[in-house]
Amino acid sequence: MSRTTTPTTRQPVLVAGQWEDGAADETLHSVDATSGERLASYACAGPDQIDRAARAAADAFETLRATSPQQRAELLEDIAARLAGDEEAIVTVAHTETGLPIARLQGELARTTGQLRLFSSLLDEASYLDVRIDHATDTTPDLRFHRIPVGPVAVFGASNFPLAFSNAGGDTASALAAGCPVIVKAHQAHLGTGARVSGHIADAVAAAGLPGGTHSALVGRGRVLGTALVQHPAIAAVGFTGSRSGGLALVAAAQSRPDPIPVFAEMSSLNPAILFPSALTDATAAAYLDSLTLGAGQFCTKPGLLLVPEGPDGDRFVAEVARLLESRVGQTMLTAGIGDALAEASSAVGGLDGVTEVGRGTPGGAATAAAPQVFSTSAARIAADERTHTEMFGAAGLIARYAGEEDLLAAVRALPGQLTATVHAETEESPVLVPLLRLLERKAGRIIVGGWPTGVAVAHTMVHGGPFPATTDARVTSVGTAAIDRFLRPVTYQSTPEALLPPAVQEENPWGTPRAIDVFSR
Amino acid sequence: MSRTTTPTTRQPVLVAGQWEDGAADETLHSVDATSGERLASYACAGPDQIDRAARAAADAFETLRATSPQQRAELLEDIAARLAGDEEAIVTVAHTETGLPIARLQGELARTTGQLRLFSSLLDEASYLDVRIDHATDTTPDLRFHRIPVGPVAVFGASNFPLAFSNAGGDTASALAAGCPVIVKAHQAHLGTGARVSGHIADAVAAAGLPGGTHSALVGRGRVLGTALVQHPAIAAVGFTGSRSGGLALVAAAQSRPDPIPVFAEMSSLNPAILFPSALTDATAAAYLDSLTLGAGQFCTKPGLLLVPEGPDGDRFVAEVARLLESRVGQTMLTAGIGDALAEASSAVGGLDGVTEVGRGTPGGAATAAAPQVFSTSAARIAADERTHTEMFGAAGLIARYAGEEDLLAAVRALPGQLTATVHAETEESPVLVPLLRLLERKAGRIIVGGWPTGVAVAHTMVHGGPFPATTDARVTSVGTAAIDRFLRPVTYQSTPEALLPPAVQEENPWGTPRAIDVFSR
Repeated sequence: MSRTTTPTTRQPVLVAGQWEDGAADETLHSVDATSGERLASYACAGPDQIDRAARAAADAFETLRATSPQQRAELLEDIAARLAGDEEAIVTVAHTETGLPIARLQGELARTTGQLRLFSSLLDEASYLDVRIDHATDTTPDLRFHRIPVGPVAVFGASNFPLAFSNAGGDTASALAAGCPVIVKAHQAHLGTGARVSGHIADAVAAAGLPGGTHSALVGRGRVLGTALVQHPAIAAVGFTGSRSGGLALVAAAQSRPDPIPVFAEMSSLNPAILFPSALTDATAAAYLDSLTLGAGQFCTKPGLLLVPEGPDGDRFVAEVARLLESRVGQTMLTAGIGDALAEASSAVGGLDGVTEVGRGTPGGAATAAAPQVFSTSAARIAADERTHTEMFGAAGLIARYAGEEDLLAAVRALPGQLTATVHAETEESPVLVPLLRLLERKAGRIIVGGWPTGVAVAHTMVHGGPFPATTDARVTSVGTAAIDRFLRPVTYQSTPEALLPPAVQEENPWGTPRAIDVFSR
Repeated sequence: MSRTTTPTTRQPVLVAGQWEDGAADETLHSVDATSGERLASYACAGPDQIDRAARAAADAFETLRATSPQQRAELLEDIAARLAGDEEAIVTVAHTETGLPIARLQGELARTTGQLRLFSSLLDEASYLDVRIDHATDTTPDLRFHRIPVGPVAVFGASNFPLAFSNAGGDTASALAAGCPVIVKAHQAHLGTGARVSGHIADAVAAAGLPGGTHSALVGRGRVLGTALVQHPAIAAVGFTGSRSGGLALVAAAQSRPDPIPVFAEMSSLNPAILFPSALTDATAAAYLDSLTLGAGQFCTKPGLLLVPEGPDGDRFVAEVARLLESRVGQTMLTAGIGDALAEASSAVGGLDGVTEVGRGTPGGAATAAAPQVFSTSAARIAADERTHTEMFGAAGLIARYAGEEDLLAAVRALPGQLTATVHAETEESPVLVPLLRLLERKAGRIIVGGWPTGVAVAHTMVHGGPFPATTDARVTSVGTAAIDRFLRPVTYQSTPEALLPPAVQEENPWGTPRAIDVFSR
């Protein structure tokens, strides 16, 4: 066991800053996504390693939560700098393991470091602590409200974002920003990438003089490692991006604890996009297919359902989609399993009564590079048959034709919760636009007018979340600064002498935190 | 069926502003808490009435959520004024039904109206909408973040606060403030009080020109009415104050929905209070018993566990508690059932190995007015035997003697989540004080130094919440302005023309809402 600055180590398990061989009998393999060839073997973490990582996180929490927001801002900046400094190696291993294009991975790394730096800005400003002070009055005591971190967080990396939603992704960044140690369950689709990234986090933690338990990264299967992590008494919350079955399994495990903990799972979404007549142009058809097939359609925000008016203009639009689709070529998918799941979901949807194929493109070179596909049905089917709401994770989409605005609204009302909802229309095009947008508000966390849902800005203003089954908690987001809210809880100090108060609520305000003082005192 | 301004109607079920006879076969009775005599019969709501109330709430939601915060502020002010104007009648019926003293009920009504007015102030100011705007840049779209109401809320009234935690209590006030219609399941310990109060809410709703579905109040048993409400598709969230078994039953019902919804349940707490040597005075003994026996000990924040040092000063303190206890007289409890549960819990705790009785007072006149009781054990037992953590809801307490600071910390570490934790010490008394307070932070939502936990200020700065099992969600409070957060979720509008934006995020800012504009744009 040794601390390393070259995290390409073949010791795959990072327990509290130390690389170790996995102690379990089971072994996972990293795979070249394009050729299907095995790259390396990773022995899974054993129960003792999981337990030590969790206990170390609990110990580290006491130190980490006592740091100032500014100290944690420096930690995040340092992680970002280390990742940026190792771009070539990180992007190379991620490209091999995921088949994602180099340029996309360079962009994703920039997004990952930008995300860490955004949380650093949030910490510097520190209004996220929500400090409120009511000084004592004749009838009420001195009360000081602020938010504290909840404790160690288990993070489950996502297959489709090996950087931005994985070891150093948004869940990790927001949890560390809050003051919560992080144990990552590395996604098995990019184990080498995860190890390299977590090595930089561990190095930054060590350089900051923080305990190694601030970050661990474990390898293992969801049913074993995932369940063990979620049920470990030291874990206080869970961040997950992945399938609905995976997310709900973690919720069930968390709810069966003696002390249930929250699981913030971002799971599945159709991302309905609605075209009004003015949008039925060839340019829209091309932009739709660009969004549908971006990254082989492997985005949570892929526009899986497109609502198009009936009638000749709509027919021409759909014909143009079919024509353009012919020249679209399938791209290598992240894993063979994801390719299989897409084939299964698209043949299930394609086989439903009232669903027909609009067209398909050409398969790509790799075994998983299935031809992009688009199906068609009626809005009435969307309203009547929830099997048409099945997510096809990959470059496949469903177009639903609506007869009129009532038909459109009925279909939208029938939809379950979504991450996004998109409308293409002229502002004055229809009196139904405003009611439609207010209806979509109830269905989704983000409303887009005139754009496409893929491409999620990491911002103070972003909501990447939405009602079930898009997520397990519509009150939060997993992207943007508000993601920190998941890992904080409020605590009030009453009648407490200055010397005994935590810094955030001391009268002296050593952290320079924005505060709401005596705002609603009557 | 008729709308009434004299809500002493014997028609007990308020469906969307109309009083109706209950349609179920089962009948509940209101009871004189002191004599045990039956006062009135209330037929329970039938399935059709529950369904109509929920559908009416869903319809009303569309209107209510479109109102401005200022309009809802006026509604809350009007409800407060109507309740204050009917003080004599409300307090009289509540006194008969609950046995609580007139002065206490007058205070509780003032608290209830003050609470409504506090939310009115919050709405006038409107920062709770958390509006954030990032204008478009060369690389990012225009993004506008705000919070919207979640939908109709089911509120379960509490036995021990017939006014402040019931039909027009904190859950109702915060849900209406958010823009969510409210269906109250009236607590069967004060059905007449609930009907009178809900009549005023319905009148204020009608006077404001809002749909009757904005407020319904139903009578029935938890297992029937409660489950039906929580599982109704129209209900989006639940507020509950009561027993752990009741709260967990609602969580199970909510989790078994096709679309699980959040249940914000405030359930049980020992409210540990820790005395350091300087606090071992006769005045502390008297103040402890005052807090323990206030309202017959029927407060969620009653100091159920008192940690007292071993040694002669601690012995003298406990002897003084025993001496003072002799002259304390039992008070009428809210219901016979609560009296029975107290008897059962206190004999369970009193019968544990290593637990002895310190003393007891005198029973009061009513059948339920059990003698106040205090038991004693060791801090080591608290650390070792979780049966000593059993809540005794009523005027019963457990004193745990600690041998030293390590012994104290071990006992505190073993405690489950709490609503409050209290410390009595001189600021410079011990170096363990600061670590102890930071440990208590992890256990409780409110830390009190030198006071007592009973008496919860309704304030912008209050946290009435805490880790499980004190509540089902430690990230929220059920008292104070932050209670509104339970019923809001964030939504972002991207690239949306001004004419299609909701008022809160329009550039023009018609509601005059405080906004964070371009704060973290890099």
